[in-house]
Amino acid sequence: MSKALEGLKVVDLTSALNGPFCTMILADYGAEVIKIEPVGGEQCREWGPLDEKSGESGFYCYVNRNKKGVTLNLKSEKGKKLFFDLVKDADIVVENYRGGVTKKLGIDYESVKKVNPTVIYASGSGFGQYGPITHRPCYDIVAQAMGGMINLTGFKDQNPVKVGPSVADHVAGIYLSVGVLLALHNREKTGQGQLVDVAMFDTIFSLLENALVNYTIGGFIPERNGNVDPSIAPFDIYDCKDGFIALGVGNDRLYKKFCKAIGHEELIDDPRYANNELRCQNYIPDLQNLIRDWCKQYTKSEIETIMDEVGVPCGPVLNVKEAIEHPHIQAREMMVHCEHPTAGDQYFQGCVVKLSETPGSVDAPAPLLGQHNAEIFGLSEEEVVQLSEEGVI
Amino acid sequence: MSKALEGLKVVDLTSALNGPFCTMILADYGAEVIKIEPVGGEQCREWGPLDEKSGESGFYCYVNRNKKGVTLNLKSEKGKKLFFDLVKDADIVVENYRGGVTKKLGIDYESVKKVNPTVIYASGSGFGQYGPITHRPCYDIVAQAMGGMINLTGFKDQNPVKVGPSVADHVAGIYLSVGVLLALHNREKTGQGQLVDVAMFDTIFSLLENALVNYTIGGFIPERNGNVDPSIAPFDIYDCKDGFIALGVGNDRLYKKFCKAIGHEELIDDPRYANNELRCQNYIPDLQNLIRDWCKQYTKSEIETIMDEVGVPCGPVLNVKEAIEHPHIQAREMMVHCEHPTAGDQYFQGCVVKLSETPGSVDAPAPLLGQHNAEIFGLSEEEVVQLSEEGVI
Repeated sequence: MSKALEGLKVVDLTSALNGPFCTMILADYGAEVIKIEPVGGEQCREWGPLDEKSGESGFYCYVNRNKKGVTLNLKSEKGKKLFFDLVKDADIVVENYRGGVTKKLGIDYESVKKVNPTVIYASGSGFGQYGPITHRPCYDIVAQAMGGMINLTGFKDQNPVKVGPSVADHVAGIYLSVGVLLALHNREKTGQGQLVDVAMFDTIFSLLENALVNYTIGGFIPERNGNVDPSIAPFDIYDCKDGFIALGVGNDRLYKKFCKAIGHEELIDDPRYANNELRCQNYIPDLQNLIRDWCKQYTKSEIETIMDEVGVPCGPVLNVKEAIEHPHIQAREMMVHCEHPTAGDQYFQGCVVKLSETPGSVDAPAPLLGQHNAEIFGLSEEEVVQLSEEGVI
Repeated sequence: MSKALEGLKVVDLTSALNGPFCTMILADYGAEVIKIEPVGGEQCREWGPLDEKSGESGFYCYVNRNKKGVTLNLKSEKGKKLFFDLVKDADIVVENYRGGVTKKLGIDYESVKKVNPTVIYASGSGFGQYGPITHRPCYDIVAQAMGGMINLTGFKDQNPVKVGPSVADHVAGIYLSVGVLLALHNREKTGQGQLVDVAMFDTIFSLLENALVNYTIGGFIPERNGNVDPSIAPFDIYDCKDGFIALGVGNDRLYKKFCKAIGHEELIDDPRYANNELRCQNYIPDLQNLIRDWCKQYTKSEIETIMDEVGVPCGPVLNVKEAIEHPHIQAREMMVHCEHPTAGDQYFQGCVVKLSETPGSVDAPAPLLGQHNAEIFGLSEEEVVQLSEEGVI
């Protein structure tokens, strides 16, 4: 089976997370991604977990699978020449330096466009390519904070808490893929390349949902509310015998089924809970406590079975091991094996977007440092040794 | 300026959030999106905040801007005929029913393909189109729970907490756009349509980052850790005079600058904090407390200025109002005005992906219920009235 992006050449200047996550998606669906690293390797080759035997970073390997790897000193003249040779016939360049850095290095969109007028140049960064704080460095936690997400996460009257995983980095990487593919579609129609600019700050801000219109239209500033939804009840996370479970009883029809399922049919006609609006007003403390007491008698799995039978949305709070081993995650190939030349079998995340005719897949491990220098730059063994001694590759 | 997706026709069967967020992106970048709603309107027309004057839902309006709206009873014979007439020349169909429902309705990919062999049919759902629990209903909180995110969010030794905003819905919608655009690129090369399948469960699972390899390669099950990063220190959220601030001191170079900036140069040579690994081990309690004490003396804005000067990644925890009004969000047009025929001026989120040549924009308000019935179905006024009386539109 062929892949959707086969035949496209991507020059990948990215490191760490948001950029590499974008080029991972492009590579999973068939683009030839050539990852350029500094001569010493990019920072996240050192990030744990490290494979005991080979020292390879699990983090680096999952996010850079399916890519080819070269090294390049972009501050050297020879290195820059090799870069410009490489981008001449590239379809796409992706970078995630902070705003202003590619210009300083002389490898920004304007410079690349001179040798490749139809190139699509995609930039992922904390604060984007324009705006008053474009120059600032950013980590995921900073984007989550400024984008408004941290203030909305956590329990009422307690400190705000960041989203555990790096949601700003990941989602910015996915948006960057959207941008590349939009620009690609446009180029096919018009022959025109362009600059794609995605900021982690904007990314988080775009996920705030009706919190924004609650302020601009509703006139109030929404605050964090733990696991309780202010506009649906019961909708919460409950303690059970062996962990926690999420329950969402979204409307009156589900509420009736739910009351029967938990053996409390008397709640159906309780005037305090006659409709969703009243349930929201009166959920705390009585209804919440009653459901809490009910859940404590059962395991996650028992509650899941009961709710599945009556069609009430429900799911256990799974830890990483449980999620990995879940039969649904397994059936959808969300975990895949990949053979790495020095680390051996690796087992990590698969491809989210399922395409019936041109599916993505993990076909090759992440590159060793500089593994494809000879192939990509068209160098003899001697030339590789010499350029390496000169500190160019 | 033209837009990237101009000329593409999208038939949009989606409701609530993940599907509509996908078609919002397609519409923002120029596709003609025809939103089909049940005759009574889709559920989120009722969701707050509601405009006082017109009763229009702010939620519905932001996520359905730039779309045309028709009503259709897909269970009626005439309604189904109108649907199949509509999809005959559509490029893309998007739906987000739960697994199995489109088949029951007779509007699944196989059925649509019969009248339109090259259609791209994109499905967003809780659990996707295959796998053991494909049939289950899902809310955002359920996908967050099962996907492993809730277990990783919150403070150590406290209950887990869901991400405030609906991250599963949003990100599934963005992935669905990636799928549509991948399929579109493939169709341009091969003339072949296909089915795109994105599940909210998979979506959340894909955002867990190295938590997955920490288990499969590192051999341990990561747990939530509040705002402290287990592998970088100092990297935390601190109380200050007027709120909270995020600080990320990611390496030794930044640590030196940081110590000088807070007037504690003695910390640079403190053997407990000599490198990042030691700082991670010894961050709690002394270093954390010292930084906490320092932060409490300043406002968010004062700390931001100090850190910006020395280049330490830093950002205040902004509430929704503060984020909306931030000069950077404003400069990047992440909030836009849109004139609605009955609700008047609306002010909501803009477009994340910035394209230099074919930018996205908000050009038209969300449709009134059935607003484009006559135009889209090619009906006379009399026909509209009659089909409406029959309950077809």
